[in-house]
Amino acid sequence: MPPNGPARITQPMTHEDETGPQPTLVLVRPQMGENIGAAARAMLNFGLDRMRLVAPRDGWPNQKAVAMASGAGRVLDRAGVYDDLPAALADCDYVYATTARSRELSKPVRTPERAMAEARAMRAEGKRVAILFGPERAGLENEDVSRANAIITVPVNPDFASLNLGQSVLLMAYEWGRQSLHAEPEIMGLARTDFATQVEVEALANHFEERLDAVGYFFPETKAAGMKLVLRNMWTRLALTRADVQMFHGMLRQIFRKLG
Amino acid sequence: MPPNGPARITQPMTHEDETGPQPTLVLVRPQMGENIGAAARAMLNFGLDRMRLVAPRDGWPNQKAVAMASGAGRVLDRAGVYDDLPAALADCDYVYATTARSRELSKPVRTPERAMAEARAMRAEGKRVAILFGPERAGLENEDVSRANAIITVPVNPDFASLNLGQSVLLMAYEWGRQSLHAEPEIMGLARTDFATQVEVEALANHFEERLDAVGYFFPETKAAGMKLVLRNMWTRLALTRADVQMFHGMLRQIFRKLG
Repeated sequence: MPPNGPARITQPMTHEDETGPQPTLVLVRPQMGENIGAAARAMLNFGLDRMRLVAPRDGWPNQKAVAMASGAGRVLDRAGVYDDLPAALADCDYVYATTARSRELSKPVRTPERAMAEARAMRAEGKRVAILFGPERAGLENEDVSRANAIITVPVNPDFASLNLGQSVLLMAYEWGRQSLHAEPEIMGLARTDFATQVEVEALANHFEERLDAVGYFFPETKAAGMKLVLRNMWTRLALTRADVQMFHGMLRQIFRKLG
Repeated sequence: MPPNGPARITQPMTHEDETGPQPTLVLVRPQMGENIGAAARAMLNFGLDRMRLVAPRDGWPNQKAVAMASGAGRVLDRAGVYDDLPAALADCDYVYATTARSRELSKPVRTPERAMAEARAMRAEGKRVAILFGPERAGLENEDVSRANAIITVPVNPDFASLNLGQSVLLMAYEWGRQSLHAEPEIMGLARTDFATQVEVEALANHFEERLDAVGYFFPETKAAGMKLVLRNMWTRLALTRADVQMFHGMLRQIFRKLG
């Protein structure tokens, strides 16, 4: 797992609603230290750093968790460790259990999208929200689910459902981040682009039109006006940068310098 | 990785807009077979099964990929394998590159959310969309990104960004699955545009590059490679229609016919 993966962003995130605590992700009876470390990394990718552990199988602290967490070690350092689930949830206002729809327990079922929207709203009111994740092999037991207010189920392919613990944590963290990090790179990118001015695009269009006229491109005569209109329309549609415009001028100039 | 993780659902997914092909996920020069298998699983969780591989490091087929894919083996069975990226993208109408914002190449940047909304709308119009993922260590190179129409960047914590290949694929597949059909008019406009295919844009880029080479445009020699990259990147960024491409070919051909 490289420190710099293929997907990262340089823009600062904004948090407009930092009233209450972040959601707390509770790993219930996790088995592998590596998965605890991976969960810490997945969380921190989206700015979540409140983790609680209930009865981790191999005790705590866990060196494999630390090794896997790498740069996200501070999530583990701060993690609360509890003997049982009621202790871990004692101060929580609202609890979600991530699980398949239970056939035995009737509980409201939420998508990650809806649940994180609710969590955001509760946070704004100063409430503490917890999200439970079950052990790797079997997931949460009914006993665990019975302590939650609602269920979160990821809508996956019914013919192939294989999300593991780290992936479930990642998707929940992503949903939290997607809704709360107001990074709109396309709009920022648009705002920062050094577009050519109208007058520069006009000059480029004229340059091409004159040169193409000279080489007989607008032919036959009866279609010339229409061809010029289509070409002029294209130049403005392309959203050229100032650098693009210079490049197009340069290309045309060089061709005519060499051949003309 | 257990076959039944903690998060699954019993509800069938609905596909209301199955007009065109699914998005194709293209793994560019992937290194570890395990990661190819994990990507296949992540995709199939959300119903995606079109994978292409460009020059996988350890050749193909790959037993480690098969072992990791487990129940998602059919994604690998169907995967197309290509020697280079242009071959893999030849029939694609619109290409996204997953990467951090490039400081060198200017391209529109999209969130996964926005990109998948666009992809859904383009699919409804029968278009083939590809999403590129780079190799594990270094991600996509500028050369690869220059062949994409737009960039997808996951908005992550700027102080801790550690998404690996499998996680990036998972998040993109999740976004695909998450979204409903309420495409915005602006996005529908994008979907209806008759964009030139990748192979057509590639041919145009080659045509200009050859002609400009012949007239000594790429000067001095030390800057030639960089100038070519910038130019190639521009062609894909402009989102040229099929008609634009024909017009550019025609302009250049006529100039050389007359002067050459």
